[in-house]
Amino acid sequence: MTLGIVVGTVVSSSKDEQIQGARYLLIDKCNQQGEKKGDYLVALDIVGVGPNEMVMISEGSTARETMVTKNKPIDALVVGIIDIIDENDIIVYKK
Amino acid sequence: MTLGIVVGTVVSSSKDEQIQGARYLLIDKCNQQGEKKGDYLVALDIVGVGPNEMVMISEGSTARETMVTKNKPIDALVVGIIDIIDENDIIVYKK
Amino acid sequence: MTLGIVVGTVVSSSKDEQIQGARYLLIDKCNQQGEKKGDYLVALDIVGVGPNEMVMISEGSTARETMVTKNKPIDALVVGIIDIIDENDIIVYKK
Amino acid sequence: MTLGIVVGTVVSSSKDEQIQGARYLLIDKCNQQGEKKGDYLVALDIVGVGPNEMVMISEGSTARETMVTKNKPIDALVVGIIDIIDENDIIVYKK
Amino acid sequence: MTLGIVVGTVVSSSKDEQIQGARYLLIDKCNQQGEKKGDYLVALDIVGVGPNEMVMISEGSTARETMVTKNKPIDALVVGIIDIIDENDIIVYKK
Repeated sequence: MTLGIVVGTVVSSSKDEQIQGARYLLIDKCNQQGEKKGDYLVALDIVGVGPNEMVMISEGSTARETMVTKNKPIDALVVGIIDIIDENDIIVYKK
Repeated sequence: MTLGIVVGTVVSSSKDEQIQGARYLLIDKCNQQGEKKGDYLVALDIVGVGPNEMVMISEGSTARETMVTKNKPIDALVVGIIDIIDENDIIVYKK
Repeated sequence: MTLGIVVGTVVSSSKDEQIQGARYLLIDKCNQQGEKKGDYLVALDIVGVGPNEMVMISEGSTARETMVTKNKPIDALVVGIIDIIDENDIIVYKK
Repeated sequence: MTLGIVVGTVVSSSKDEQIQGARYLLIDKCNQQGEKKGDYLVALDIVGVGPNEMVMISEGSTARETMVTKNKPIDALVVGIIDIIDENDIIVYKK
Repeated sequence: MTLGIVVGTVVSSSKDEQIQGARYLLIDKCNQQGEKKGDYLVALDIVGVGPNEMVMISEGSTARETMVTKNKPIDALVVGIIDIIDENDIIVYKK
């Protein structure tokens, strides 16, 4: 899974009916300390995350492995909010 | 999903019969402000987008998760036209 | 889909029996004007393309979405020969 | 498969119920000698690896090809601990 | 498919039971002339290749499209040994 920070939202009015009503987030990929990379993607949110939270994203066919996203043309999904990351026994990120 | 700008069309006369008649768009990937990256791909359009619009693209097996593209050798699909993107509560792109 | 130029052929004698007899092409990825990038891949040809033609390639599981490639260990397939690409209403590539 | 070193753990409290209770590792990709690249990902551990071990990671839909990860939104999985790597008949890594 | 040179082997003692006994190769990706890139991956060998041979690798879900690898957490598979590559009618690689 990839780490990223929620930096905004994306509104899309003409999308395929299969994914109408879904909430898309603008994600800036980040490192393990939460430093943004300036490398953006759009991911569907099924967890209910807030702005500036670090999240874990699953990409590809994996993004469809939930009830909500099954058979929908989604290739990036927020699957978790990150609480703590430790690296070499040091906490490098805390929510 | 990946963001991109519709910059042209691609005509392919000898393609596999499974995808004859489909409309292919030339997409230049862009950032969240609509700035083009000069990184091109070809995506199938099932939404009906116009030139210079910013779109959201699903790639890989996800591109086949619609009635139109099911079982077809398509690996990039326009799944939505972008209306608004906000980043840190500032609107950075508007259609 | 990715754009590329057919620059050669690849002969492989010991491949898995599932894909014996198939014709593999050496593809150099290219931009929308047909300029080669020096970034090579091997793709199966089911369309019947000639040397130096620009083609459209589907990658990943999508490459198996034809009768010929179904259930075969192929991850890159030529799905069409490019005739015309226009960018901002200017024809940038013509076969 | 990709090689990486286990450098930490990732705690995620709000993840989709399908993957609650799973253990996520922070992995720094490495070369064949175990030199870290500073290129991080999060992978699920079903093998039971310890800190600083070199592991082999499967990505994409492949990560779901186990009893534990089937139908779960996981796109990176530790599938083995590396014991020995030889390159040109020289052992370049040993656990 | 991706081209690579077999440069070594990888021994993994603690891997998931589904892939025990399999033989993993250390592959250095190469260009069409067999020049190594220093970009390594681990691939399962079902063809029986020898050291320093150039091979063709399928990645992602495609790696599971054989009897041996079906339903196994493998995301890179050697699918053929390369005998000859010609580029612009010149043989640039010969086994």
